[in-house]
Amino acid sequence: MNDRELGCAGGQFMDRGRMNQNGVVQPLLTDLYQITMAYAYWKSDKTDDTAVFDLFFRNNPFHGEFTIFAGLEECLKFLDSFHYSQSDIEYLKQTLPEGIEHEFFEYLGNLTARDVTLYAIDEGTVAFPRVPIIKIEGPLIIVQLLETTLLTLVNYASLMATNAARYRMVAGKHVKLLEFGLRRAQGPDGGLSASKYSYTGGFDGTSNVLAGKLFNIPVKGTHAHAYITSFSSIGELKTRLIKHKQTGILEDLLEHAIRHRALLSHLLDVSTEESSEGELAAMVSYAIAFPDGFMALVDTSGLLNFSAVALALNDLGYHALGIRIDSGDLAYLSCLARETFEKVAERFKVPWFNKLTIVASNDINEDTILSLNEQGHKIDCFGIGTHLVTCQRQPALGCVYKLVEINGQPRIKLSQDVEKVTMPGNKNAYRLYSADGHALIDLLQKVSEPPPAVGQKVLCRHPFQESKRAYVIPSHVESLYKVYWKSGKICQQLPTLEQVREKVQISLKTLRNDHKRTLNPTPYKVAVSDNLYNFIHDLWLQNAPIGELS
Amino acid sequence: MNDRELGCAGGQFMDRGRMNQNGVVQPLLTDLYQITMAYAYWKSDKTDDTAVFDLFFRNNPFHGEFTIFAGLEECLKFLDSFHYSQSDIEYLKQTLPEGIEHEFFEYLGNLTARDVTLYAIDEGTVAFPRVPIIKIEGPLIIVQLLETTLLTLVNYASLMATNAARYRMVAGKHVKLLEFGLRRAQGPDGGLSASKYSYTGGFDGTSNVLAGKLFNIPVKGTHAHAYITSFSSIGELKTRLIKHKQTGILEDLLEHAIRHRALLSHLLDVSTEESSEGELAAMVSYAIAFPDGFMALVDTSGLLNFSAVALALNDLGYHALGIRIDSGDLAYLSCLARETFEKVAERFKVPWFNKLTIVASNDINEDTILSLNEQGHKIDCFGIGTHLVTCQRQPALGCVYKLVEINGQPRIKLSQDVEKVTMPGNKNAYRLYSADGHALIDLLQKVSEPPPAVGQKVLCRHPFQESKRAYVIPSHVESLYKVYWKSGKICQQLPTLEQVREKVQISLKTLRNDHKRTLNPTPYKVAVSDNLYNFIHDLWLQNAPIGELS
Repeated sequence: MNDRELGCAGGQFMDRGRMNQNGVVQPLLTDLYQITMAYAYWKSDKTDDTAVFDLFFRNNPFHGEFTIFAGLEECLKFLDSFHYSQSDIEYLKQTLPEGIEHEFFEYLGNLTARDVTLYAIDEGTVAFPRVPIIKIEGPLIIVQLLETTLLTLVNYASLMATNAARYRMVAGKHVKLLEFGLRRAQGPDGGLSASKYSYTGGFDGTSNVLAGKLFNIPVKGTHAHAYITSFSSIGELKTRLIKHKQTGILEDLLEHAIRHRALLSHLLDVSTEESSEGELAAMVSYAIAFPDGFMALVDTSGLLNFSAVALALNDLGYHALGIRIDSGDLAYLSCLARETFEKVAERFKVPWFNKLTIVASNDINEDTILSLNEQGHKIDCFGIGTHLVTCQRQPALGCVYKLVEINGQPRIKLSQDVEKVTMPGNKNAYRLYSADGHALIDLLQKVSEPPPAVGQKVLCRHPFQESKRAYVIPSHVESLYKVYWKSGKICQQLPTLEQVREKVQISLKTLRNDHKRTLNPTPYKVAVSDNLYNFIHDLWLQNAPIGELS
Repeated sequence: MNDRELGCAGGQFMDRGRMNQNGVVQPLLTDLYQITMAYAYWKSDKTDDTAVFDLFFRNNPFHGEFTIFAGLEECLKFLDSFHYSQSDIEYLKQTLPEGIEHEFFEYLGNLTARDVTLYAIDEGTVAFPRVPIIKIEGPLIIVQLLETTLLTLVNYASLMATNAARYRMVAGKHVKLLEFGLRRAQGPDGGLSASKYSYTGGFDGTSNVLAGKLFNIPVKGTHAHAYITSFSSIGELKTRLIKHKQTGILEDLLEHAIRHRALLSHLLDVSTEESSEGELAAMVSYAIAFPDGFMALVDTSGLLNFSAVALALNDLGYHALGIRIDSGDLAYLSCLARETFEKVAERFKVPWFNKLTIVASNDINEDTILSLNEQGHKIDCFGIGTHLVTCQRQPALGCVYKLVEINGQPRIKLSQDVEKVTMPGNKNAYRLYSADGHALIDLLQKVSEPPPAVGQKVLCRHPFQESKRAYVIPSHVESLYKVYWKSGKICQQLPTLEQVREKVQISLKTLRNDHKRTLNPTPYKVAVSDNLYNFIHDLWLQNAPIGELS
């Protein structure tokens, strides 16, 4: 059997895997033009040029007015491991046009991110259009080579965390949210990133076991419909016995369940004939496997069987967990289920039945939750898949990476589309807060300017519209950037995933509600200092094209 | 510096990486409920039950009427490597509820896909709703455990290949298509899968270097706007010399370019003052790096500088490749560029200038290409990013995996939504062709039925609507399933990626154009045999719920 039959597809380099051993992406995960540009820079003797690039987005996703910044830790790990392997160099030699000088490959082979300095906003912080979330300084060639990979690591992570945070906001804090999207994710790693960053954004867990293992995220799940349909009658039940939790005596769970079903049929006014025997068998067998974690997938008629099995478990000292509803009218069914549980609780003197968990899944999105909230529902937990992980409403965040300074000289990208004009120069970013702790405005300044001072008025200007300006007197000023990477080292104690997750909620709390609401949220203001405003507009004039009305 | 500072985030298991060494996904990349179900099956003594699952989708994506099946090879590699490592088992012991019997973990530790048989349609074939693209038989537990991973591997791969094939159809065969989406992809692997399956679907290459290395896909790319802005004047040009291709004599490329620019300024009626000196310097330096592969990013005014540098290269024996346009009115600019090249070709007697490649990028989607086709354009190559790789119009394909038979007994999933009713039993699938080679209909039958015969009439019935039926006399009958995996081995010679890519085009050719058109395509018919029809409807009756109008 040859290689192909063994399924070892792809080029001669397939054996090296897609990521390195630590799950960190490789530097070849980039666009070819970064490498051709690197050669042209090298060939033009620009190896000593120093550049500053800004990584930012122009619009918040999902018609919202905020974005959660995520992916920083992966960027730092990428910098830490940045190195072209011998096999990478071999591949590039074969792939780049002929005539590339040999010394360039030697140069690439020795390249690391040691001379790069990376500034960033803290991971998990709310971020806004045009305020760079990462600022990166260093030798032009290496800083250019990092572009695509940094964008790849930040774009989806931030999009996903933002999406998750939005679900958390509409669901409220008391409802559990689980990510169930692996099967619909954009590739295996799309699934892993979705699990990780939906947890960051405020989800409580995932169904994705590997994500649980790799990132230490709680994993959840019960059974699928297939489990129910794998049984068609009670006769198929090979095991009916279970030990009483306290006494340890083996008892017949099915017998208990059938007895309770008869009583329940009367109480709930549901004929036992309406409920499937196969379903009862499946539930009994599942309860025997997980007597203390019994959670069953039910449809309308399944409530009878579920309650019967849960009461049978109760006879033997176990408490069921609840149900999952995956079809039909979720508002109605959840209310019906809660009502049923309350009736059972009262009739059978099992008060904990009132608190059985009701999980709902089935193609849920932000609007579904808003609509369920309006209708009234009794759902304790949502399992959310496709819409969450693919970010269906907007499947990409448009982060870009723009050159703003080279060898101390500012660079501006002009465009007829004013939205696409870049903010030139090396800048700092500050967030100004009101006395009540709300974020008022983000302010960009030239690095040479002193930071805004608490209690003093700061002139904040719209970057492009001359007439839009206001004085702000901050009660608190936060300098948004920290140096995260310098001299080949990560310079900050990195937060755990849990800490980033907490940061998201803390940071969201600083935003006024009108910025966060789903319908027509108020844009959060991003401003430039007067000094930066004049700097931008002088440059704009100097660089204005001749003969075109821009 | 501790682990966290080094960026080694995640749980204690982080060091194992996300995929195994061959880039094959691990069996823990699944939903937890597969493993809890496995335990419940095991505990219920169902280890010897034999199941058949169908993997299929219910709707074609992108409002189209076909889907390209992709991802099979990755599924087979997954089966081939299916094995829980000791570390996986340890994680599961910590994660599953308490009380799981120790023998179950031993059972899991020894589990492989050896006893599974996998049937599938060939990768790269057009596929249709309800016709299983994969059918998988074997011990219930293992077959259930494969669900999520197989769905993850098929869903995005097929969605992506279909999306790419649609772009190929609207662009026509003579235009080159390049995938430029890595930075906007859903995670690093989302980017890799996008590159791979857009190539499968008919793209010509990618900008993603790692995808090129791993899958042996052509990689393409030139430079970004940053390269242009990294130069602000001619004075910054440190190297201006290049060897004449034939004579080897060093010449000053800038001097040649400036001379040509003056002449061109007159010819093209563009003042040299309108074109940036920095841009000229950048282009000269780039041309020195890639004299035989000179392709430059230009805007309107950039045509003068590009033509000047290309003519300068021509003086020294080199042929430029062309330009990339990334902003503005692509139809207009491409026509203007072609016209310019034609003028230059004539005036300077450089006929190859007529054929310079014009690449267009900038947020292109299917509709943009259709609109450009209508307007008329001179683009030779599209670089497509976000819309392609995220499949923005529909970011997930809804493949499902349903139990259809257990221990020889059919299983049907009923639903008030007739679209969600499953086709029970172990089935074969045939594609019937007309004399002119077009696919007429896909037909599902029970495996016990003889295959449809060429030249004989076959009763084809709509699966759910009694009145819809037709006789079809096929000129050719294709049995859609092959055994791809059996007795622990891949049973077919697997095609190369190139071969799958060819298969896509061959398979699409068998579809009538009206099934493939963008606007209101005709649905392709999927039918069941009379025998299967009756079988489904008898089962439906037997399983109909009491007391509900279904």
